[in-house]
Amino acid sequence: MPTFKLTLAYDGTHFSGWQAQPGQRTIQGALRDAWQEITGEAVRMTATSRTDAGVHALGQIVGIETQSQLPPEQLLRGLNAKLPDDVVLRSVESAAEGFHATHDAVEKRYRYQLHNDRRRPLFDRHLVWHIPKPLDVEAMQRAGRLLVGKHDFASFQSTGSPRDSTVRTITSLDIGLGGDDEPARIWIEVCGDGFLYNMARNIVGTLIDVGAGRRPAEWMSEVLAALDRKAAGQTAPPQGLTLMEVTMEVTMQVKG
Amino acid sequence: MPTFKLTLAYDGTHFSGWQAQPGQRTIQGALRDAWQEITGEAVRMTATSRTDAGVHALGQIVGIETQSQLPPEQLLRGLNAKLPDDVVLRSVESAAEGFHATHDAVEKRYRYQLHNDRRRPLFDRHLVWHIPKPLDVEAMQRAGRLLVGKHDFASFQSTGSPRDSTVRTITSLDIGLGGDDEPARIWIEVCGDGFLYNMARNIVGTLIDVGAGRRPAEWMSEVLAALDRKAAGQTAPPQGLTLMEVTMEVTMQVKG
Repeated sequence: MPTFKLTLAYDGTHFSGWQAQPGQRTIQGALRDAWQEITGEAVRMTATSRTDAGVHALGQIVGIETQSQLPPEQLLRGLNAKLPDDVVLRSVESAAEGFHATHDAVEKRYRYQLHNDRRRPLFDRHLVWHIPKPLDVEAMQRAGRLLVGKHDFASFQSTGSPRDSTVRTITSLDIGLGGDDEPARIWIEVCGDGFLYNMARNIVGTLIDVGAGRRPAEWMSEVLAALDRKAAGQTAPPQGLTLMEVTMEVTMQVKG
Repeated sequence: MPTFKLTLAYDGTHFSGWQAQPGQRTIQGALRDAWQEITGEAVRMTATSRTDAGVHALGQIVGIETQSQLPPEQLLRGLNAKLPDDVVLRSVESAAEGFHATHDAVEKRYRYQLHNDRRRPLFDRHLVWHIPKPLDVEAMQRAGRLLVGKHDFASFQSTGSPRDSTVRTITSLDIGLGGDDEPARIWIEVCGDGFLYNMARNIVGTLIDVGAGRRPAEWMSEVLAALDRKAAGQTAPPQGLTLMEVTMEVTMQVKG
């Protein structure tokens, strides 16, 4: 059965998240509707990340098995013409049969953006978390380094979606300042082999406690060791988060 | 009577333009409501530019005469707390009595942004005009230079708001490419002592005819000479336009 790997970007502001739900505007629903218009087929799909309402993506990966014999370029053009203006399909590639966007993902990269200025953000207000008081970025960097590696991240898992294991590996966590154009911008990039429910946003909320001076950087080790969600900081709001890129297992891919 | 000069930024996407109209969401209406909440006073105001629906501003100037004795810093904080999240008040300054945001403006600077790429824009789709086919920027620059100076711009005035004179002076018109972050971005900046109704957007629409190769750069002189709206190109859509900055007559200002 023809199988495709789609790379999708979206502005999550006006969506109730990735996952299709009756009566809700969702990215999965929009993609499913567009696919049906092009091929006539009600298709099932897998996605690497079930992003929440308000969360954005530049590189969401979607796997689709289809009866359609349309070539990838034609699917790309046709779907983009049907998708709403807050979803952009970046590429369509042929994939090996059995390709699964969730299971075959080996690393995900998320970026979280902060607007750290007394003044409110304007044009990018749906893309940032506004923190008016100055943050100590250097302390946040020190705290962030304590999370890198293979750990039990139970303290950073929101309830509602328990997994068998809460052990994950964070391969990098970088924090930096926006360029000259964006002096008020602080970004946090975190790469890992998997993320528990709300893990990226819970890490950001906890880093903010350090940046705001409410906790020292070393406190991050205590939070990790507690294995208890109540030990960590608040869940950062969704609009600052973007799924940037997913690395897939190479052996599963066939170029279209 | 205390008089204030306000500098206002807004995302025009969800507004029916500057000017208050019954039953419409307008920037003037939002500012008037916020002012009334803070001071209890239904105030009248002047603005430099009555921006259309969908047009943005970083430096709209508003003049307000008030009975309120509140200091500028308190008005700034209080109004920003009441304004919706798509309007940001950047500054409040005391002004000389008789200050008028329209009459005392000596120069305005507008920026128009194009997204010139086959792919659709995503996060900035409300801030750009999407032109999929490659534009000849150099030809647009040559055409734009023909507009600089004092001319009768009747060809660039949309009907609906006739003025006594259609002579205006464009002091500069620059066209450039976005930086490394925005390779698909083309910006057009035009400064002038005044703009006829839709003049900036009609100039952009006409420059696009040149950039797309439908007309040579020299055609711009014919359009100017025709003194006829039908001679020029289409009106560019509103969402690409931002009022960047207004220069006021210096003698009218008193620092707060």
